[in-house]
Amino acid sequence: MPKGRLEAFSDGVIAIIITIMVLELKVPHGEDFNALIPLWPTFLSYVLSFVYVGIYWNNHHHMLHLVHHVNGHVLWANLNLLFWLSLLPVATAFMGTNEFATVPVAVYGVDLLMCAISYSVLEFTLRRSHGPDSPFAKAIGTEWKEKISLAAYLAAIPLTFASRWIGVAIYVAVAAMWFIPDRRFEKAG
Amino acid sequence: MPKGRLEAFSDGVIAIIITIMVLELKVPHGEDFNALIPLWPTFLSYVLSFVYVGIYWNNHHHMLHLVHHVNGHVLWANLNLLFWLSLLPVATAFMGTNEFATVPVAVYGVDLLMCAISYSVLEFTLRRSHGPDSPFAKAIGTEWKEKISLAAYLAAIPLTFASRWIGVAIYVAVAAMWFIPDRRFEKAG
Amino acid sequence: MPKGRLEAFSDGVIAIIITIMVLELKVPHGEDFNALIPLWPTFLSYVLSFVYVGIYWNNHHHMLHLVHHVNGHVLWANLNLLFWLSLLPVATAFMGTNEFATVPVAVYGVDLLMCAISYSVLEFTLRRSHGPDSPFAKAIGTEWKEKISLAAYLAAIPLTFASRWIGVAIYVAVAAMWFIPDRRFEKAG
Amino acid sequence: MPKGRLEAFSDGVIAIIITIMVLELKVPHGEDFNALIPLWPTFLSYVLSFVYVGIYWNNHHHMLHLVHHVNGHVLWANLNLLFWLSLLPVATAFMGTNEFATVPVAVYGVDLLMCAISYSVLEFTLRRSHGPDSPFAKAIGTEWKEKISLAAYLAAIPLTFASRWIGVAIYVAVAAMWFIPDRRFEKAG
Repeated sequence: MPKGRLEAFSDGVIAIIITIMVLELKVPHGEDFNALIPLWPTFLSYVLSFVYVGIYWNNHHHMLHLVHHVNGHVLWANLNLLFWLSLLPVATAFMGTNEFATVPVAVYGVDLLMCAISYSVLEFTLRRSHGPDSPFAKAIGTEWKEKISLAAYLAAIPLTFASRWIGVAIYVAVAAMWFIPDRRFEKAG
Repeated sequence: MPKGRLEAFSDGVIAIIITIMVLELKVPHGEDFNALIPLWPTFLSYVLSFVYVGIYWNNHHHMLHLVHHVNGHVLWANLNLLFWLSLLPVATAFMGTNEFATVPVAVYGVDLLMCAISYSVLEFTLRRSHGPDSPFAKAIGTEWKEKISLAAYLAAIPLTFASRWIGVAIYVAVAAMWFIPDRRFEKAG
Repeated sequence: MPKGRLEAFSDGVIAIIITIMVLELKVPHGEDFNALIPLWPTFLSYVLSFVYVGIYWNNHHHMLHLVHHVNGHVLWANLNLLFWLSLLPVATAFMGTNEFATVPVAVYGVDLLMCAISYSVLEFTLRRSHGPDSPFAKAIGTEWKEKISLAAYLAAIPLTFASRWIGVAIYVAVAAMWFIPDRRFEKAG
Repeated sequence: MPKGRLEAFSDGVIAIIITIMVLELKVPHGEDFNALIPLWPTFLSYVLSFVYVGIYWNNHHHMLHLVHHVNGHVLWANLNLLFWLSLLPVATAFMGTNEFATVPVAVYGVDLLMCAISYSVLEFTLRRSHGPDSPFAKAIGTEWKEKISLAAYLAAIPLTFASRWIGVAIYVAVAAMWFIPDRRFEKAG
C-alpha cells in the first residue's frame, strides 16, 4: 500500500488537534486588559501543547519521509498515536483551567507518556515491515532521544506529586530537546 | 473522473469526525482524581467510536486503493457514508452522557447499521461502475464480513432492549472482527 | 499557478463546514426516545444543508476537473464562495432551532442565494481566464441550471413571507435538481 | 525534504482556523430580524478575519509555489506563523463580542502584528535556505508591502487608544493593500 493517504489523514487529524485546542481559550468576559489575566494558565498550557503537537507532526513528517510502504499494522499503530494525541486538547484544558494543579499536571504527563510509547510502537512497526537492513532502520538508529523522553515522563509523573513545577519543568525540557526536528531521517533522505 | 479529490475530501471529513468526538470529553471540573471518574462512560464510548471511525477509514483506504475512476453515483454514495459517519459523534455523546442507557445504546446501533448499509452501497456502486470482471470486483469477493456485520447490528438493536450490555458486547465484537484491515484489497493491490 | 492547493484548501474548508454543522445537533437530555423528538427540526435542516454542501463540493470537484491554471482573481472568487458556504452552519442552526420559522427560513434562502451567486462568479472568473474557446468554456455552456437556481432563490425569499413552507419546498426542489452532479464537465473530461 | 506535506498541513490548519471562527457567530435567540441585530459586530469582525486568513493563505500559497525544499528551520518558522494565526479566532471573538472596544481592538492588532512578523521570519528562513541568488530570493525582492504592514500595525496599536476606529481603519487598509495576491511569485513562477 502506498503511504500517501496515511500522511494525508494524519496531517488532517493533527491539524485539527492543534487547532481545536485554541477553542479552550474562551473569549474573555470584559473589555479591558484585566479580562485577559485569567487566561494566562490556559494560554501557557496551549503554547506547551502546540509545541508538542508541532514536534509530533515534524517527527511524523520526517519519519514517514523514508517509509516506502505501509500495511494494516502500520495503519493501526498510526491510529493509536493519533488517539493519544487527540486526548492532548482535553489534558491541556484540564491542566490550564485548574492552573497547573498537581493531578492535572500528572494526567497531562500520562498522556505525553502514552503519545511517546505510541510513537515508539509506530517506529517499531515500520522498522519491522521494512527490515533491519533497510535505509529506514538505519536512519532510526539507537533512538536515544525516544528513550530519554520515555524515562523523563516516567520520572515526571511521580515527581509531580513532590512538586507540580518539577513535572512542568520536565515536560518543557523534553519539548526543548525535541525542538530540533529529527535529523536522522533528513540526513538519510 | 480521477479519485484523488474523493480520497482527499473523505480523509478530511473522517479526520474531523474522529477528532471532534473528543470535544464531548468536557474538561472535568475539579483538580483531583475524583474529577475524572464521571468521564469514564464518555471516555469508553469515545474509544469505541474512535475504533469504529478508524475501521471505516482503514477500509475506505483499502477499498479506494483498487478503484480507478469515480462517477457521480460514487460521489453521492460516498457522501451518504460520510453523512451517517458524521452522526457518530452525536450518537456517541448520547450514549456516553447517559452512561450506556438502553435507548441511547440502541440509537448508537442504528447509526452503526446505517453506516454499514452505506458502506455496502458504496461498495456495490463501485463494483457496478468497474464491471463484474474487474480486479476491484474480484477483490471484494463474497463480502461475508459485511454480511455478518449487518446481521449483527440487526440483532443487536432489539437485543439491547433485553439487556443493553448485549448490544454493547455485539458492537465491540464486530469492531474486533474488523480490527484487522480488509486484506482482500491489500492482496489484490 | 497550478490548481492543486486550491483544490486541497477548498476540500479542507468544505469538509470542515459539512462536519461542524453536526455540532449543532446538541446531545439530547434524557435517555428515552422522547429526548430525540425536539431534535427533528435541527436534524432535518442538517440533512438539507449536508445535501447542499455535498452538491457544492461535487460541482466544485467537477468544475475544477477541467481547470488548467488559477490566478489571483480565481483564488479570491473561490474564497468568496467558501465565505458564504461557511455561513451555512449558522443559517442552518438559526432555521433548525427556530423550527423553520419565517425569518430564519428567509435568511437561509439569502445565504443559498449568495452561495449561488458566488459560484457563478467563480465560474465566470475561470471562464474569463481560460478564454471563450477553451474546453472549460465549452463545457460550461449556457449554465441554465445556475440561472434556474438563482431565479428560484430570488422567488423563494419573498414567497417565504406568504408561507414559510413554500420557501422550504423551493430549497428542496433546487437541491433535487442539482442532486445529479454536473455532467457537463464529466463528459468534457 | 519535499514541500508537499508542509503545504498540506498548512492548508489543513488554515482551513480549520478560517472555519472555526464561524463558531463564534452564535445562533441568534429569537426568530425575527431583531434577533440578528446583536450579531453585527461579531459578523463584521468575522468578515475582517476571514479576509486576513484568506490573504495569508493566498500569500503562503504563492510563496511556497517557488520553494523547492524545506528543512527543520522552515518547519518551525511555519508552525510559528500557524500559531499566531490560530489565535486570530480568539482575538476576533474578543473584538466582536465587545463591539470593537479599545483594548480588544488593540489586542487584535497585536495578533496581526505577530502574524506579520512570523510571515517575514518564514520568508527570511526560506530565503536563507535557498540562497541570495535563487529564483525564490529574487522573486521576494524588497518586501515593501511587508514593511508597510509592520509599520502600519505598529502605528495602529497605540493609535487605537486615541480612537479605536483609527485602529480598525488601519487594519482594513492593510487588508485592502494585500487583497491583490502577491504577484512577485506568480510572475516568477
